[in-house]
Amino acid sequence: MSVSSDTSGKKYAISLVDVQAAAQRIKGYVHRTPIMTCRTLDALAGRHLVFKPENLQKVGAFKARGAFNAVLSIRETSPDTLKKGVITHSSGNHAQALALAARDAKCPAHIIMPSNAPSVKKDAVRGYGATVHECEPTLEAREATARAVEKETGGVFIHPYNNPLIMAGQGTVALELLEQAEEARTPLDAVLVQVGGGGLLSGCTITLKSLRPEVKVFAAEPKGADDTYRSLKSGKWVPSIRPDTVADGLLTSTGDLTFPIIKDQIDDIFVVDDREIIRATKLVWERMKLVIEPSAAVTLAVALYNADFKRAAEGCKNIGVVFSGGNVDFERAVTLFKTLEELDS
Amino acid sequence: MSVSSDTSGKKYAISLVDVQAAAQRIKGYVHRTPIMTCRTLDALAGRHLVFKPENLQKVGAFKARGAFNAVLSIRETSPDTLKKGVITHSSGNHAQALALAARDAKCPAHIIMPSNAPSVKKDAVRGYGATVHECEPTLEAREATARAVEKETGGVFIHPYNNPLIMAGQGTVALELLEQAEEARTPLDAVLVQVGGGGLLSGCTITLKSLRPEVKVFAAEPKGADDTYRSLKSGKWVPSIRPDTVADGLLTSTGDLTFPIIKDQIDDIFVVDDREIIRATKLVWERMKLVIEPSAAVTLAVALYNADFKRAAEGCKNIGVVFSGGNVDFERAVTLFKTLEELDS
Repeated sequence: MSVSSDTSGKKYAISLVDVQAAAQRIKGYVHRTPIMTCRTLDALAGRHLVFKPENLQKVGAFKARGAFNAVLSIRETSPDTLKKGVITHSSGNHAQALALAARDAKCPAHIIMPSNAPSVKKDAVRGYGATVHECEPTLEAREATARAVEKETGGVFIHPYNNPLIMAGQGTVALELLEQAEEARTPLDAVLVQVGGGGLLSGCTITLKSLRPEVKVFAAEPKGADDTYRSLKSGKWVPSIRPDTVADGLLTSTGDLTFPIIKDQIDDIFVVDDREIIRATKLVWERMKLVIEPSAAVTLAVALYNADFKRAAEGCKNIGVVFSGGNVDFERAVTLFKTLEELDS
Repeated sequence: MSVSSDTSGKKYAISLVDVQAAAQRIKGYVHRTPIMTCRTLDALAGRHLVFKPENLQKVGAFKARGAFNAVLSIRETSPDTLKKGVITHSSGNHAQALALAARDAKCPAHIIMPSNAPSVKKDAVRGYGATVHECEPTLEAREATARAVEKETGGVFIHPYNNPLIMAGQGTVALELLEQAEEARTPLDAVLVQVGGGGLLSGCTITLKSLRPEVKVFAAEPKGADDTYRSLKSGKWVPSIRPDTVADGLLTSTGDLTFPIIKDQIDDIFVVDDREIIRATKLVWERMKLVIEPSAAVTLAVALYNADFKRAAEGCKNIGVVFSGGNVDFERAVTLFKTLEELDS
């Protein structure tokens, strides 16, 4: 929670107009992903699920939305600063997204990555023309390196989630999902969104509760990284300490900009274990023919396997289910699927 | 080519009106799959590719279109016959598609499968409520069993591709693709379609050449099952003998209803080897996050790797690329991908 931001005295870091502005800004730069349905999964869930597959988004994850919104917005307001570059620390989808957005905006991107990050991830970021700065794999080294690069380049640091432009960009997922579900004549009664740092969840929550307050917002979190669940149930923010889950995109804690929105506005939060997450991931590969990463399947796992959710969602006919991304090593995924088969047999 | 059909003196088994009628008939029963684009693959191909991912279709393949068209059409014209059931021999996607269509139309489905077919395929068909009739794994046994079941039940035999209703149903892929490409303001200059038995290719060709004769139709075939390529190049129909390719959905020969359309109307045909097919399959999993089977990637492999195609498609800016299906064993796919990495390193 090192980043603070001028939110001009507003109660929250973003409001609906920020999300709507983001939607206009990133149009044509990112995909308007389709919605999808699957009768087999409806039958298993006992209700109609309207999927928003952000694995089909650019760079394979919703992160492209926030990154493009941040870069294009800075280009509008501070073009000279943008020329100096954008900076972030991430070894995941945000790094690739920011690198791509910077390339499209013709500005430098500096990505700080731990020295022990897989070389395939470093190469992916370099493939988009970004500069990788390696550092020791500690929080301190990461932040120190980020500050050093900021000072050296004069560029802008863009936090992976605790940043209003990022949050507003991610909120466009909900904006599209609402519209598309209406077009398909399956207006939503609830939406399931996964939570890691909370950029996606806070952006979607502001959007949904502003436009359609009657639509329930349910968060989905892995049991092995249940800091948001514990924070909400105890009423006091707790960090993610030694998280351990296959949903490796959801290991981080929420930030001081994302958490207040989540705390005040979501309807409830549910957790699922790794076995349920893997089972849901495999179902989506098999039945929907989509490559999704385990983090993406946490929402579906809640819809299929969480008894508390089933009670909370009683009366909800059409439920939006966000798939966050699809960046997964195939061999690892298939190994997980096999483990499950062995456990089941 | 055991099935003949009354085509009422017309030159071809189907015409555009049959495809348009099929589109009306199957609407709401099958998915209108989206079109998708991928900048990385555009860069590799050197042109804009407009993908039609039929792996996202019901039962994971375009085969749902033909099967629903056949079943629903028979329900309109001969409801009493339909009650006796539909029959086919297939251990692939057509079997599942017909089983699903029959279930939705509340009629029996009888699927003849070789005794050595994987039990997972038999179970999938039984899962849709169909009856599986096992036979010896020979062409003679298969046809004899089909005739016996026809006689016993009074049901209708529906060939996997050499049937006008099936061909017209598959043609709806091209109808949608044309419309969607126009809507996206990327009108097509050419379309790449894979060929096995030719149901999909003949249906798409009639559609494209009737509506937009200037759009080029290019067929894509695996080198290890290149009977259509050899037939067209020699001017004489030759069967598929001992085919050997990873694209296991494209092993069959064209039929007497599908071949004449292909012979007269397509612009050209191109072949690719297994290594190119696996490479294209892997690219789609990685870059588009879609689970497709090797047969589906044969079109993209032609677009990326076939030098003759690149010459023939010169001047073609926007090219439609059909992905036929996504029914593949994950472990097998990942093993193929690894083989490729080893060959490349």
